Amino acid sequence: MDKHPIERQIENADKAIIAEDFDTLLDIYTEEAILVVEPGRNAKGKELIRKAFEAIAVYFKNGLQVKQNGMEILESGDTALVLANTVISAPNMPVTERKATYVFNKSANGTWLCSIDNSYGHEIIRKND
Amino acid sequence: MDKHPIERQIENADKAIIAEDFDTLLDIYTEEAILVVEPGRNAKGKELIRKAFEAIAVYFKNGLQVKQNGMEILESGDTALVLANTVISAPNMPVTERKATYVFNKSANGTWLCSIDNSYGHEIIRKND
Repeated sequence: MDKHPIERQIENADKAIIAEDFDTLLDIYTEEAILVVEPGRNAKGKELIRKAFEAIAVYFKNGLQVKQNGMEILESGDTALVLANTVISAPNMPVTERKATYVFNKSANGTWLCSIDNSYGHEIIRKND
Repeated sequence: MDKHPIERQIENADKAIIAEDFDTLLDIYTEEAILVVEPGRNAKGKELIRKAFEAIAVYFKNGLQVKQNGMEILESGDTALVLANTVISAPNMPVTERKATYVFNKSANGTWLCSIDNSYGHEIIRKND
């Protein structure tokens, strides 16, 4: 079965993160995209997302690895939700699987771009205490 | 702090589900919305979503209860992702908390409508076996 174009975009994003190829990576985001950098801290817009990825690369000793261990895509018109088991590791971080959630929007030329990138899934919900 | 309009919409939806007021409930969905009825089975479009909710009401002995135990909303332009701890129960089902994911789109008149309703979160990911 052919891969969904969004699955290809996520593969391209993962490769670009590993290669620290931020030009290619940023092409996969919408202009007003939002990235959860860590629970409670978001980067909004391409410029801040690029800065966040640059800082993340340094933080993880330029050795961040990322891959997807299963995903499902739900599509409604020009909007799609991705549920993914995202596996990350780095020289200073053991292999960690996150229940990631990504939203993609189909642009006027038919390309799916990421508008909401939340690899932390439900971890971002604040506790009532 | 004022509630986000999407949080109000979800409250309205929960009340409508409990009251089995499907006219009110369906007003909260986009025309081409997709509802995960159970992992692997989706209802697409208002007509099929209504039929699914009617069947769900009967299945749960007309006693389905639903509320949210914490949520977070990530907004990007006219698209928003909701991560929610959704608590459901029924006469024939113990209290169950689901890691729900909802996508809303802002319509031309400024109303946020649900386009993707996946209360099962990552449970819909198929296992590779």
